[in-house]
Amino acid sequence: MQITIIGTGNMARGIATRALAGGNAVTLLGTSADKAQALAGELSGDVRAGAIGDPISGDVVVLAVWYQVLDDVLGRYAGQLDGKVVVDITNPVDPQTYQPLDLAAGSVAQEIAQKVPRAKVAKAFNTTFAGTLVEGQVGGQPLDVFVASDDEDAKGVVRRLAEDSGMRLVDAGPLAIARQLEGAGYLHMAIQGDLGTSYGSALKVVS
Amino acid sequence: MQITIIGTGNMARGIATRALAGGNAVTLLGTSADKAQALAGELSGDVRAGAIGDPISGDVVVLAVWYQVLDDVLGRYAGQLDGKVVVDITNPVDPQTYQPLDLAAGSVAQEIAQKVPRAKVAKAFNTTFAGTLVEGQVGGQPLDVFVASDDEDAKGVVRRLAEDSGMRLVDAGPLAIARQLEGAGYLHMAIQGDLGTSYGSALKVVS
Repeated sequence: MQITIIGTGNMARGIATRALAGGNAVTLLGTSADKAQALAGELSGDVRAGAIGDPISGDVVVLAVWYQVLDDVLGRYAGQLDGKVVVDITNPVDPQTYQPLDLAAGSVAQEIAQKVPRAKVAKAFNTTFAGTLVEGQVGGQPLDVFVASDDEDAKGVVRRLAEDSGMRLVDAGPLAIARQLEGAGYLHMAIQGDLGTSYGSALKVVS
Repeated sequence: MQITIIGTGNMARGIATRALAGGNAVTLLGTSADKAQALAGELSGDVRAGAIGDPISGDVVVLAVWYQVLDDVLGRYAGQLDGKVVVDITNPVDPQTYQPLDLAAGSVAQEIAQKVPRAKVAKAFNTTFAGTLVEGQVGGQPLDVFVASDDEDAKGVVRRLAEDSGMRLVDAGPLAIARQLEGAGYLHMAIQGDLGTSYGSALKVVS
């Protein structure tokens, strides 16, 4: 698959690492092309770099940016996301207080689906920490990647992205369950101090 | 500890089994004393039975009933829960559609805290399935028991209940995070069909 990742932070690095490990082609788009080029230079495989605003090649876009800048990104790509799989990875928190935000749409993913109704929106990777994505596993156990979407194509893309690089996909159901996924993502962040796991843990369903 | 469990269903059985395994005394209160006696007869240890409405002995009460009957139970024990640790285990769903309920208080646990403000309310055991509680572990890994409370006594009680019977306590934070815990509990239920785990899985944080 040809995957465009918008963002050059730790989550972009983690998802790009797994996507490349799975044999996909990755294009990183940063607030500057230099930032994207710097991250691309640290990665191995079919990776390219550009700036946010560049045309999107391929049919899969991962929005690896903070909730607070999504509006700006979606505005810059108005119309260009139609028909594409758009993966939302955010956990919406107040950047000052770190408290969870209560969204009228129910979740960020549903908010995005309202703003780009012709995109195939999926929620995923919001419960997997950046550092653990670089390895794809924690303590010898593969990461669980939870996906929520109303679109089977979108789910299929996330499944390939997860499974081709050694992770497990967990189909959480329709896009509406993104609300609970965002709750679980927040919970996973909130317990890091008590557990002392420094964002190195994985939220998993074991059986 | 002396623990009163209100309810005689599968969750009452699971929590009673662990409480008894941890060396606690358990009193089961059912809609009839017969039902409670029947469950007590299946369990080993210091277990007694009675009917809902009987006075509560001890300082710990686990509400192992559906969300929809909590009001009735709390009404019958009006005033008698003051100062006691009250453990809410519910995941609020519409009994017809099985869709999650959106509560003005944020979560069932916060709703209970509003109704019995002098009780020490904790949210716990809403992500652990009944059958897995009977064993206390899944696939050789101890269950994670997430607790949310604004009261340290209540957290301490849940910690002892969990750890004394071989489970791991995860302190999720203040009672307000019960909202995200209930989201995680719903998510864990919702994925059972896709995973094929028949409510035999455990939601864990691995590291």
